[in-house]
This record gives sequence, structure tokens and C-alpha cells, in this order.
Amino acid sequence: MSLATESRVAQAAEEYRPLDADSLPAYLAGVDSCAGKLGGGADEWQVDEVGDGNLNLVFIVRGSVGSLVVKQALPYVRLVGESWPLPLKRAYFEHEALITEIDCVPELVPAVYHYDDTMALTVMEHLTPHIILRKGLIAGIRYPNLAEHVAEFMAQTLFKTSDLYLPASKKKARNAVFCDNIELCKITEDLVFTDPYRIAELNRWTTPQLDDMAAKFRGDAPLKLEAQILKEAFMGRAEALIHGDLHSGSIMVTETETKMIDPEFAFYGPRGFDVGAVIGNLLLAYFSQTGHATADDDRIDYGIWILEQIGLIWEGFRNKFLRLWETEGRGDIYLPELFDDPAGATTLAAYRDVYMKEMFHDSLGFAGMKMVRRILGLAHVEDLETIEDPDLRATCETKALLLGRELIVNRRKYDSVASVVSHAQKLQKGAEQ
Amino acid sequence: MSLATESRVAQAAEEYRPLDADSLPAYLAGVDSCAGKLGGGADEWQVDEVGDGNLNLVFIVRGSVGSLVVKQALPYVRLVGESWPLPLKRAYFEHEALITEIDCVPELVPAVYHYDDTMALTVMEHLTPHIILRKGLIAGIRYPNLAEHVAEFMAQTLFKTSDLYLPASKKKARNAVFCDNIELCKITEDLVFTDPYRIAELNRWTTPQLDDMAAKFRGDAPLKLEAQILKEAFMGRAEALIHGDLHSGSIMVTETETKMIDPEFAFYGPRGFDVGAVIGNLLLAYFSQTGHATADDDRIDYGIWILEQIGLIWEGFRNKFLRLWETEGRGDIYLPELFDDPAGATTLAAYRDVYMKEMFHDSLGFAGMKMVRRILGLAHVEDLETIEDPDLRATCETKALLLGRELIVNRRKYDSVASVVSHAQKLQKGAEQ
Repeated sequence: MSLATESRVAQAAEEYRPLDADSLPAYLAGVDSCAGKLGGGADEWQVDEVGDGNLNLVFIVRGSVGSLVVKQALPYVRLVGESWPLPLKRAYFEHEALITEIDCVPELVPAVYHYDDTMALTVMEHLTPHIILRKGLIAGIRYPNLAEHVAEFMAQTLFKTSDLYLPASKKKARNAVFCDNIELCKITEDLVFTDPYRIAELNRWTTPQLDDMAAKFRGDAPLKLEAQILKEAFMGRAEALIHGDLHSGSIMVTETETKMIDPEFAFYGPRGFDVGAVIGNLLLAYFSQTGHATADDDRIDYGIWILEQIGLIWEGFRNKFLRLWETEGRGDIYLPELFDDPAGATTLAAYRDVYMKEMFHDSLGFAGMKMVRRILGLAHVEDLETIEDPDLRATCETKALLLGRELIVNRRKYDSVASVVSHAQKLQKGAEQ
Repeated sequence: MSLATESRVAQAAEEYRPLDADSLPAYLAGVDSCAGKLGGGADEWQVDEVGDGNLNLVFIVRGSVGSLVVKQALPYVRLVGESWPLPLKRAYFEHEALITEIDCVPELVPAVYHYDDTMALTVMEHLTPHIILRKGLIAGIRYPNLAEHVAEFMAQTLFKTSDLYLPASKKKARNAVFCDNIELCKITEDLVFTDPYRIAELNRWTTPQLDDMAAKFRGDAPLKLEAQILKEAFMGRAEALIHGDLHSGSIMVTETETKMIDPEFAFYGPRGFDVGAVIGNLLLAYFSQTGHATADDDRIDYGIWILEQIGLIWEGFRNKFLRLWETEGRGDIYLPELFDDPAGATTLAAYRDVYMKEMFHDSLGFAGMKMVRRILGLAHVEDLETIEDPDLRATCETKALLLGRELIVNRRKYDSVASVVSHAQKLQKGAEQ
């Protein structure tokens, strides 16, 4: 984009206004980088509003040459309405996180064409024919590269934004920026870590089937304690720039491609929160499969495929992260020069295993938190919501809740994905008997 | 100070310039709050430069009515010289930390009369007849209220700046401010956590007596690993606004009063770093006592008194912190409403003990780091430096190094101050045999 255009855009956008299908073409016409991608004139562009998330406007714009996506923040939570205001600055954090991710793994995130701070708007690559991973998991589709890609995304972003890689000054500066993403962090703090464990107006669940279970969780002191311990970690441990919302609705897929989207919840937090989001949502998908069985497909094999992906993702992430640490650990902690003799190398290598084991335990705890909040809290998942028979849905949800609780309370007892998978299968079988 | 005066001061101070005994009176004459405290005219004020720290200019100014202290940052490390530049903004962080501490414990910090951002200068209460605690410990003076005051200062500041007390938004905002105290954090990161464990130009020690010990520490893989684990905690765990440099040179005392000064290293870090600074410096004082023995006083009883203070400080801190948590735990973690039934109350109470035990282990680890860096690193302590006989000094230092290493490597094995004290006494006796 030329400087002249940039200045014109800045001028045009002195005040925030939400765009719609009518006003969007004129806006995009003023942005060379976007108009060029679409081709032809603004009057030929086809605009569809497709936002199915909880917070924002999302448009797909198609021109004669190409297409793009426009994501604009609204000054309130879309899922709830204007009664729940939410600052536009989240678009800033999303863009900052996106360009950081592009630095790390350009092939695993959408390209960014344009960002407008005043309009709280980002124009990016139209991912097509990608679909949301969650819909693929509901449809029973296998993605052969998914585990590899998700592992790569997490290893690169969670390593290269941390003290293991960045100089202290750079990491502190980035941490300071994201400290201001207060409101979106607060949503997670409340909806994931607190509300499911107390009477809260926004909670909902499959009723009356889960009434007893919800009450039991609200009275479960060890569970509530571990939830708060994890909340303290979420609020206090600035390990890396985490995506902050890495569920299967934030991953777009084709059979061969995988793209992580929507990092507006990004901030410096515990790495395990991202890993746990992935694991927890795959476990929700696993337990929902019974609800999507048909006469042709009992979904048992597909359930096994999902569980295998959890193992592949964790092991892939672990190996990639360790390899990055070994080869690019140039940050200000665990300085290589301190461990360059044989005893030092052995000691550091052994500790890296401990480090990854602790991250695994964190991940399981956060996975459990993510599972529980999607069944007893405000925001639910399509995997379970689309199971029409409430008894069947409640059966799936009960198993997921039981595993979620187990992962939260006893996460430190699990030393491998295999033992988690085995527990999941035991719960699944128990319910089938 | 009137608005008019404030504006005049702002105008006069458009550019930073280091003050001296000649220029300081004219500066203070322009600040009503200061001129009034001193009384009389600027030409009657007596100015003494007394900075014995490593970084700044410190003046005592006396007038006919009263006196005050002026602390001004220099754009370099005073101890090293202009070759080591250091940003003036540290005066800003010191002032921010001071006013936060004043909010928590006004009686335990100096009153602030004036702050000038451009001049990187704070005017504050002249603490008199207070002396630096370190000098009192060298002189063998007992302070009956010291433990109580230090415990109170740490409990209040480390509780009331944390997620246990502040709303998440406020804590995140404060964390963001202090993330920018990059350069002073970096000094600690390098000088405490790294340099003593590698060949570094600025290191020094009692040579040749400690040459072997220094080499052994540089080759001690388990020690270096734990040092780096503690460094990661220092750089990543935003638990509370810590003082950041709470050694016995940052505490001023009379027989009855105690004031914590110089929080320019303040940032959001692990609470144990402050507690450990106090404990580590008292242990250094303990091991140095043999070097200060005279014909009249073998200092054995005084050594016991010092060790008792460590127990009183930890227990006092622990009890005060727990009491604050129980009565004012209104932050966004461990919400009281989640634990208001009998099972919840029991579970939370038991966890608070675990929480404090983990903080104790952190504190011991950081205490050990503080001890080692004062013997093998750049900045040493008067407790040991004033022992003129190098053999005697090295004997004291060796014992301190051995305990320091023990606390760093095996901190998790210590469940009480009594067991630490017992180990310290064993080392002390061993050397006396």
C-alpha cells in the first residue's frame, strides 16, 4: 500500500463504525492491497457476513480475481449482546499475535493484507475450501497432517516467544503489550476458571440430566481448588505468547492444510493452556462421537483416530519443542555456555524431560478445564450441542465431565498420553455396557 | 506544591542534569514542599553527598527547620562508571514502587516529598538517626523490632500487589508498567543468576583462597541447573510487585524503627525473591561474625541472635501473609465464595499451607543465590569485605558458599527455618573444629 493510500485510509477511518455488506466494498476500495486482490470494481464485489463466532463480524468478500476475509470487532460480545461491552482493542491484540505467529509459522496461519486500528479491522487471506476443524470432527473426517501441523504451530510459537529464545528485553516488551488484553483474559478467567464451579447466571447445561453432576462439581472442593491453582497459573505465569483460545473452532482445515485463526485472546501465559485447549477439545470430540453414530458408521474407529491424534500432537509438540530448545535455545535462561561440559549436557538434557513433563501436566489440567466449561458453563460446543437426543447428549457429556475432572484433579499422575487415552476409553466402555 | 510551582519546576527541569552540592539548593528552592521542610533560605542549606550505593547520587540537605534526602539517578552504574550506561527511568520505577509501598505500609518506608521525572530525582524523608542495617549487623547491634517490621513489610507488599488481593485488571496494568524496568532486571539476571556460575570479567573473590571453590561452582552442573530454574522463575512468574533488592543495605534501622528503602529494582516477580534476599543477607551476616570477633566479644551469642531473626522473620511473614489472605483475599483467585462450605474451607486452609511451603522453598533458593553472588560475583558485602585477614574472610565465605549451594540445590528438602539454622550451625561448628 502506498503512503498516500495509507494516509487516505487513516483519514477515512478517523472514527470507528461497524461495517456491513453495503458499506464494506467502499471501505475496501480505498485500500489498494485489498482492492487489487479482489479485482474489478467495488460494485462487483460479493459480500457475505459469515461470523459464527461469539464476538465479531466476519465477512467473506469475493471479486473477479480473488477473495478475502474481513474481520471486524464489535464493541460488545456478539453472543450476548450490547449489554456485555467488550473493547475494540482486542483487534489490535489479535493482529499483533497474528503477525508474531506469521513470523514463526507463516504456512500455518492466514496471510494478513491490511490492518486498521481505528476500525478494529483486519483483512486477511480467505481460507478456502478450508472448514472449521470442529465441523470436520463432527462429520467424521480424518486429517492426515493435522497432528503434525498443530504440533508445529504450538512448538514454534510457544518456544519462539519465550525466555528460552528471546532476549529478556524483547520478551518483557512483548509481555507489557499483551498485559493490556485485560478484558479478553477476564472472559477466560471467569468463564473457564470460575463460573462452572459456582452458581452463575450465564451457566447452562443439559437439564435435568446433568443437574446432579453440576451440583456435585459446585460442591467438589478438591476440584475447585485445582481449578483455582490453574487459574493462578493462567494469571501469573508469563511463559510465552499463547494463542489463548486454541480450540477446534480456531483451526481451519482441508485434507492437507491446517491454519490456526482468531488469536484475539493472546497474551503471555502458560504454554499448557494452548496445548490443553487442543487436547481438551479433541477429547470432547471423542466423547461426542457416540452421538453422531449412524446405521452406516458407529464412529468407533473414528473415535480411535481422534485419540491417536492426541498422542501424535503431544509427542510431535514435545519433540519439536525440545529440538528447538536444543538447537535455538539462545534466550537468557538455561544458557548453553553453562552446560557445555559432559556433566552439564547430561544434567540439562535430563531436566528438559522434567520440564516437558511439567508442561504435560499443565496441559492436562487446562484440557480438563476446557472440557468442563464447555458442558457446564456459558459457551458450549457444536460437537455436543448437535446431539439432538438430550439423554444421549447427557451420556456423552457425563463421560467428558468425568474425564475433565480426573485431568484437573489428578493431572500429575499421568505421565503419557497413553494413560490418558486408556482412561478415556475406560469411561467410554463403562457407559456402553 | 501549588500548580504554579509545579509548572515552574517542570519548566526549569526540561532537561536532565546531574545535581551537585552547589546546584541542588537552587533546585530545591523552587519546590515549595521541599523548601518549606528545610526552612530559611537556600544559601543556609547544608548539602552532603552520601551515596554509598552502587548506582545513584544521594544528598542529605539540612536547613534550620528540618532535613531531607535527595536521590538522583545517574545515567550509568556508579560502581562501574560511564562505560556501563543505565537508563534514568529507574527513578520512575523506584518512585512508583515507593508510593505503592506507602499505600501498604506507610510506617515502614520513607515519606516522599517530591518527584521529578525529567531529573530522575526523588526527595524524601531524611531517616535519622537511622543507620543501614548491614552496618548494625557488623557492629553487633540487636534490633528488637526488626523481624516484626520486615515481616510486616513483606507480607503487606507481597500480598496487596498480587492476584490474591487486586482485581485482575489492576494487577495486569501494574505488571505492564514494571515490565519496562528491563535494564535493572537484567542486572539481577546477569549478576545474580548467571555470572557467578561462569567465567565473567566482573567476577571477583578472595583469591587464591577461593579459587578452587569458584572453579568447582562453575563446574557444578546440578547447582547451575537450579540457578537457571530460579532464573526462569525470576523472569516469568509475575506473583507480586517485589522490592527486588531487599538486602540488609536496603533496610535502615534505629533500635525501634525499620524503614525499607531503594526499591528501584522493583517489578512483578516471585515473592520468594524478596524473602530470600532478607534471609540470604542475614545468613551472610551470620557467617561473617567470626571475622568481627574481638577479645571482649566472640560474637557467638550475636550469631545466635541473627539466626533467631531469620526464624522470626519467616514465621512472622508467613502468619501475617496467611492472615491477610484469610481476611482480605478479595482478588480474582481462590475466590472465598468457592470455598464457603466446611469441605471447601478445610481444603483451602490445607492448600494455603502448601502454598506457603512452596514460597518457603523459593525463598531458600533465592537466599542461596544471593549468598553466592555476593562472594563470587561483582558486588560484595561489607559484612565480609571488612574482614581484613583474607584467610579468615575466606573461611567465613566458604561456609556461606556451602550453605548457599545447599539452599539452591536442596531447597525443597527444608521444611522449616529450624532445619536451615541447624545446617548453618553445623557448617559453622565444622569450621571451628
